[in-house]
Amino acid sequence: MHSEFEFIQNIKNKYGLARVGDDCAVLPKDDKTDMVVTTDMLVEDIDFRLDWTTPEFLGHKALAVSLSDIAAMGATPKWAMLSVGVPKALWKDKFLDGFYSGYDSLAKKSHVELAGGDISQSDKFVVDSIIGGDVPKGKAILRSAAEVGDAIVVTHRVGGSRGGLRLLENGRRLSDSLEPWEENLLLTHLQPWPQVGIGSYLQNLEIVRAMIDISDGLASDLSHICESSKVGAKLYADKIPLDLSLPRLTESFEDQMHLALNGGEDFQLLFTVPAEKFSQLSAGLIEDENGLFTVIGEITANIGIIELVRDGKAEILKPQGYRHF
Amino acid sequence: MHSEFEFIQNIKNKYGLARVGDDCAVLPKDDKTDMVVTTDMLVEDIDFRLDWTTPEFLGHKALAVSLSDIAAMGATPKWAMLSVGVPKALWKDKFLDGFYSGYDSLAKKSHVELAGGDISQSDKFVVDSIIGGDVPKGKAILRSAAEVGDAIVVTHRVGGSRGGLRLLENGRRLSDSLEPWEENLLLTHLQPWPQVGIGSYLQNLEIVRAMIDISDGLASDLSHICESSKVGAKLYADKIPLDLSLPRLTESFEDQMHLALNGGEDFQLLFTVPAEKFSQLSAGLIEDENGLFTVIGEITANIGIIELVRDGKAEILKPQGYRHF
Repeated sequence: MHSEFEFIQNIKNKYGLARVGDDCAVLPKDDKTDMVVTTDMLVEDIDFRLDWTTPEFLGHKALAVSLSDIAAMGATPKWAMLSVGVPKALWKDKFLDGFYSGYDSLAKKSHVELAGGDISQSDKFVVDSIIGGDVPKGKAILRSAAEVGDAIVVTHRVGGSRGGLRLLENGRRLSDSLEPWEENLLLTHLQPWPQVGIGSYLQNLEIVRAMIDISDGLASDLSHICESSKVGAKLYADKIPLDLSLPRLTESFEDQMHLALNGGEDFQLLFTVPAEKFSQLSAGLIEDENGLFTVIGEITANIGIIELVRDGKAEILKPQGYRHF
Repeated sequence: MHSEFEFIQNIKNKYGLARVGDDCAVLPKDDKTDMVVTTDMLVEDIDFRLDWTTPEFLGHKALAVSLSDIAAMGATPKWAMLSVGVPKALWKDKFLDGFYSGYDSLAKKSHVELAGGDISQSDKFVVDSIIGGDVPKGKAILRSAAEVGDAIVVTHRVGGSRGGLRLLENGRRLSDSLEPWEENLLLTHLQPWPQVGIGSYLQNLEIVRAMIDISDGLASDLSHICESSKVGAKLYADKIPLDLSLPRLTESFEDQMHLALNGGEDFQLLFTVPAEKFSQLSAGLIEDENGLFTVIGEITANIGIIELVRDGKAEILKPQGYRHF
């Protein structure tokens, strides 16, 4: 039994796919520009449940997960393609209208043009979301360029998406009478906002060394940077910017940390910068109550090892992000 | 209940998707080049059955269907992305190895680089095949440029894929002891060869007005050209180059015509040229026993009407190509 990561590595080695392994593939476009392309497949009852969301939120999220990959390369999204497999039962009602409306609304906000796609019949609703974007030639921000001593930075706050998923697993629904913190968590999971603007901002700043988006989970995605860059990392538990609603969901700090480290689908950006340049990061940006950039640790020379420092003691972290297999 | 075509038209109108409706989306790349992109979703038990094919043929076909779309634009394929949803049962065995091997083999022959993709878990095996290609700026061959009086031309022969599908429906399998004509038909269906070289050749010739690949069926795909170009068409039954194995499958000419007109998945090219320029088509090309270019009819001014002329009598053809819904 292989994991998804081992399988992708296997495919990559076997077929010489030098470009697989980052959030997007990078291809030459013209003299000044590279093109980045990403594709994300979402499958009903694996990646989402129809009775937990709305068609509009699902359309939004289908685009958001791919936009997040584009943002993680420091690229600007340009065009999109959308393939959907639709069960017969969903063909007749308003479902697809809502789905496309949610997709389209985020596409307009993100200046992405839906250029085409495909429609097939299927047993379960399945979506493949493809986005192409532009990045200045040679400037795509990869996972592989982190250096020892770099500060590890995360945008906004983490753990909220997994918190929302737990509420859903426990039977809470959008249609219930919800407290504000519950609604925040549910929306963080069901309608995530990709960090496209911040990705562009970081590209222009030209100080980021390695970047990824948090889709599998903070610990797991950090381990991807470490593996690609052949470095290690040290994280400080008390620095991690937990979602502000998490303490309402669970009093245990241990549990909150688990949601933040292993939850996934936060779609925040995780990146490294030379430590002395961190102060350049927020220049000209206005922070909101969720903060914007937080240093949560540093890159070390312990190749492949991620340490979590808590109360002055370090433990070795085992990534537990979501795996399909 | 909408058909797939009506639905796509509806989506197109609603969201202003000017570029939807051809085999590929056309996007600006640089001063001299446009980029074409296509995506095709194939779903187990809808578009294929695992017990009717091999993993290698399925990988081949997943790429072939998209290459055929690129060919239909007169474009050159360059890069590919591949998203797969894989049932747990297929994860453990040699299935994916065979699938990727079949895909990779055709990719190498077609000079297409697999640049990335996604893997998810699913109930049924599902593939989304994405290809990007290049075409000289403004030279993508669309469906919408056919003119009254144009000759309608098809490549090679048609009906064989649907013939192979009928054999499969009737219980014949690749593993059976097969007569050569049976093997031909099965392979035409299971391992189709996209007309990429001919697409390029036609691009360079610069005489083709409108083009499409035969995926839905000759009649149905011709109707797409007619609708997009706001013209009609007249087809001559005795001119249609039927697959040479069809008479072994069915003695009825009526039935053979049905397979050829409504079968789909032949992945031949269907295009129009000014009638006086047809003679330029085969210059420098060597024809095989399946012929190469056959004039099967002409574009008329009867907007949206396709006539089939047989024994001197004309009947109005109703497209019956495969519809998902």
